[in-house]
Amino acid sequence: MFMKDHVTKQARRAKAASRILACIPAEVRNNALLAMADALEARQDEILDANAKEVATAREKTTRPNMLDRLILTPKRIADMAEGIRQVVKLDDPIGKFDFEVTRPNGLKIRRQRVPFGVVGIVYEARPNVTADAIALCIKSGNACLLRGGSEAVRTNKKISDTLKEAAIANGIPAGAIEFIGIMDRDAVVVMCRLRKLVDVIIPRGGAGLIARVVEHSTVPVIETGTGVCHTFVDKSADFDLALKVCMNAKTSRPSVCNAMETLLIHRDIAADFLPKISQAMVDANVELRGDDACREIFPDMKSATDDDWATEYNDLILSVKIVDDVAAAIEHINRYGSAHSDAIITRDDESAKIFEQMVDSADVYVNASTRFTDGFEFGFGAEIGISTQKLHARGPMGLEALTTTKYIITGNGQIR
Amino acid sequence: MFMKDHVTKQARRAKAASRILACIPAEVRNNALLAMADALEARQDEILDANAKEVATAREKTTRPNMLDRLILTPKRIADMAEGIRQVVKLDDPIGKFDFEVTRPNGLKIRRQRVPFGVVGIVYEARPNVTADAIALCIKSGNACLLRGGSEAVRTNKKISDTLKEAAIANGIPAGAIEFIGIMDRDAVVVMCRLRKLVDVIIPRGGAGLIARVVEHSTVPVIETGTGVCHTFVDKSADFDLALKVCMNAKTSRPSVCNAMETLLIHRDIAADFLPKISQAMVDANVELRGDDACREIFPDMKSATDDDWATEYNDLILSVKIVDDVAAAIEHINRYGSAHSDAIITRDDESAKIFEQMVDSADVYVNASTRFTDGFEFGFGAEIGISTQKLHARGPMGLEALTTTKYIITGNGQIR
Repeated sequence: MFMKDHVTKQARRAKAASRILACIPAEVRNNALLAMADALEARQDEILDANAKEVATAREKTTRPNMLDRLILTPKRIADMAEGIRQVVKLDDPIGKFDFEVTRPNGLKIRRQRVPFGVVGIVYEARPNVTADAIALCIKSGNACLLRGGSEAVRTNKKISDTLKEAAIANGIPAGAIEFIGIMDRDAVVVMCRLRKLVDVIIPRGGAGLIARVVEHSTVPVIETGTGVCHTFVDKSADFDLALKVCMNAKTSRPSVCNAMETLLIHRDIAADFLPKISQAMVDANVELRGDDACREIFPDMKSATDDDWATEYNDLILSVKIVDDVAAAIEHINRYGSAHSDAIITRDDESAKIFEQMVDSADVYVNASTRFTDGFEFGFGAEIGISTQKLHARGPMGLEALTTTKYIITGNGQIR
Repeated sequence: MFMKDHVTKQARRAKAASRILACIPAEVRNNALLAMADALEARQDEILDANAKEVATAREKTTRPNMLDRLILTPKRIADMAEGIRQVVKLDDPIGKFDFEVTRPNGLKIRRQRVPFGVVGIVYEARPNVTADAIALCIKSGNACLLRGGSEAVRTNKKISDTLKEAAIANGIPAGAIEFIGIMDRDAVVVMCRLRKLVDVIIPRGGAGLIARVVEHSTVPVIETGTGVCHTFVDKSADFDLALKVCMNAKTSRPSVCNAMETLLIHRDIAADFLPKISQAMVDANVELRGDDACREIFPDMKSATDDDWATEYNDLILSVKIVDDVAAAIEHINRYGSAHSDAIITRDDESAKIFEQMVDSADVYVNASTRFTDGFEFGFGAEIGISTQKLHARGPMGLEALTTTKYIITGNGQIR
C-alpha cells in the first residue's frame, strides 16, 4: 500500500508538472538541457562512486557479462551521456507546429497542433545510459517523465536522475517533471502501468520478458519496442558477393542488438551453391548454425533447428538457416515467425523485391541492404526513443515526434449545430 | 474451449485475408463496396425479418427505449446504411502513399508508406448500423475486420455481415476479410482482445463499461473512443447572447451523444447575471440542473451536485453547473473531471482563449463554438470511425487514415554498417 501511494504521488507530481512544461518555450527547455549535460560531467565522481558499489554487488552475484557491461559506467561513458544530451538540444522543437488547418463552410476554423503527451512512463533494465537518454528526450519534447529502471542499477540511476533534476529545476523546468521511482518493489511497474489518468503512455525498453509483463498488465496505452527476430532472404537472382557481405554484416557486426539477423532464408534453386559459401563464412566468424534438414544435407556441419529456433531472438552468434521454395514461402515464414521488426531480401529481380516489400508485414523492409540500419540515427532522425514493433502510433525507429500527440483547436464566433 | 478455438480460427482467416487485401487496388475495393451497398438494399426484407424478431424479444425484456431505438431497422435506415457505404467509396484511397522519403549519405533510400493495419477488431453494442459502417471503412482502408456486436442484435448483424460478405467475395475481396463473431459467449470479447499476433488493433465503440472491459483485458493495442464528459466555460468577458445560444445547443440539440455538454462552468464575476438566464432557459428546455452551493444560492431551483456528478457522462437532459473563480480554476476542473473529449470556452478575451486552448488537455478544444461539432463529418473527413479520447495514434475524430499504419521500405545496393 505504501508503495502504491508513493508511486501514485510521484505520478501526480509528474502530471501537475506536465501541464506547465507543455507551455514552456523551446529555448527554456534547451537551456535547461545544456545545464543538465554540464551537471552530469560536474558530478561525475558521485555517479561513478554509486556505480562502482553496484557493479561490485553485481559481480558477487555473478551477473551475466552482457548485463555487467551495460551496468558499468566510466568517465568516457558519462561524457558520452552528456554529449548525447547536447545533441538532443540541437534537434528541431517537435512541439507547437500546426500540421492541419481548415476553415469549414460554417466559418469554424479547425487547426491541429503538435503537443506533448503529458507524462511518459519509461520502464527499463539496468542500463544507466537509458536514464539520461530518456530524461533528455522527454524534456526536449515537453513531457514529464516517470522512470523505473532495473534494480541492479537503482543507485546509479537515482544519482543520475537527481543530478539532472536539480539542474533542470534550477533552469526553469517545473519540479515533478523528472520523477524516478526508487522503490525496488517489483510490483511498482504494475502500479505504474495502471495509472490511467496520470500516465499518458508507457514505453518499455528492454528484453522480451519486460515488454510482455508491461503489455499484460498495462491499462495505459503502451508503445512496444525492440524485440527483433530479423530475417534475410537470399533470392535465386541474388548477387552472391553482395549477399555474402550483407548477411555477414547483419549477423556478426553486433549480434547482441535487436536489428541483427537471426534467421537466414535461402532460395532452393541456389542453395547448393550459396549455402556452403555463407555457412563456411559464418562458421569462420564463430557463428553457430542451426538448419533444417535440407540445409544439413548440403552443409552437414550444423545443428538441427527446432520449431522454437525460428521464433527466437538469439542476440548472440547463433543463426538459424532454412531453405525455402520461393519468395512467397520466404514471406510466409517471415510473417509467421518474425517479430515484424526488420527483414531483408537480397535479389536482382525487381518483381521479387516488389512482392517482398508489399507482403512482408514488418516495420522495416529492406532490399539489398543489411537489417542493421534500423536505427533512429541511421535514419537521420537525430535521436531514438526505441524501435516500435507495433502498428499503433509509431512503427520502426522512433524520433522525437513519436513522443508527441496532437490536439484540435477549433475557433468560432458562436457556431451551433 | 470451443469458443476460443472458433474465435481464433476466425481471426486466423481474417489475418490470411488481410495479406491479400493489402495488395488489392483501390478500384477493386471500391467496386466491391458499391456491390455491397446494392446487396444491402436487395436483401432488405431478410434483414428486416431478422431484425423484427430481435426487436420483439428486446421489447419483451423491456429494454430501455434508447437501446430499442438503436436496434430497430426500417427500410429508410437500411437505405441510409447503403448510402453511407456509397459515400465511403467516394473518399480518397488512404493506402499506398509515401509520406516520407530520404536518401541517406550512404545511398540508402528510405521511404515510409501508408499501409493497412491488417486485422481490425471492432467491439460494439446492439447497433446494426455499426456493422455496415465498420465493414465499409475497413474494406475501404484495405483492412480485414473481426466484428463482435451486442447480443440483442446478433441475428440482424449476422444477416448484414453475411450480405456484405457475399457481395464482397463475389467482387474480388478475399474470403475472410469480413469475419463476424456470432457466438454469444461474453468471454469471446476477451479472447479476441488477446489474439496478439492475429489482431492488429481493437476499437471498442460503445459505452464506458464496454470500453473499460476491453482496456482491462486487451493485450492487443486499443484505440479508445467516445466517452464524453464535455464542458463549456463561460468566461467573465463572454457575450451573453452568444453564450446562451452555444450552451443551449451543446446541451439540448442531441443530449444522448458523446459531444453534448455535461457540465457548465461559469466565471464568478458574471454568475449573478448569467446563471439565472441560462438556468431558466435550460429548465424551459426540460433540462434537470445539478449545481454546487454557490449556484443554488443564485438559482435555488436546482438539485445539489455531488462529486460524482462532475465525472458523469449523463447522455441525457441533465446538466451539472459550477461557479469557478477564473479561467485557471475552469481549466483545473476540466482536466480533473473531464474525459479529454471536447471542451469549450466562451470569451471575448484573447488571452483567456489562448490559455484555455493551451492548458486544457483535451482532444478538441473550442473557442466560442458548440462542442457538438466534434465529428468526422463536421470536421470534413467524410467518414468517422469514432472519436479517440486517447493520445496514442489518433486523437479526436478519426477519419480513414486512423485505420492505417506505416512501414519503412529501405532500398540499397549492398550497404552494410
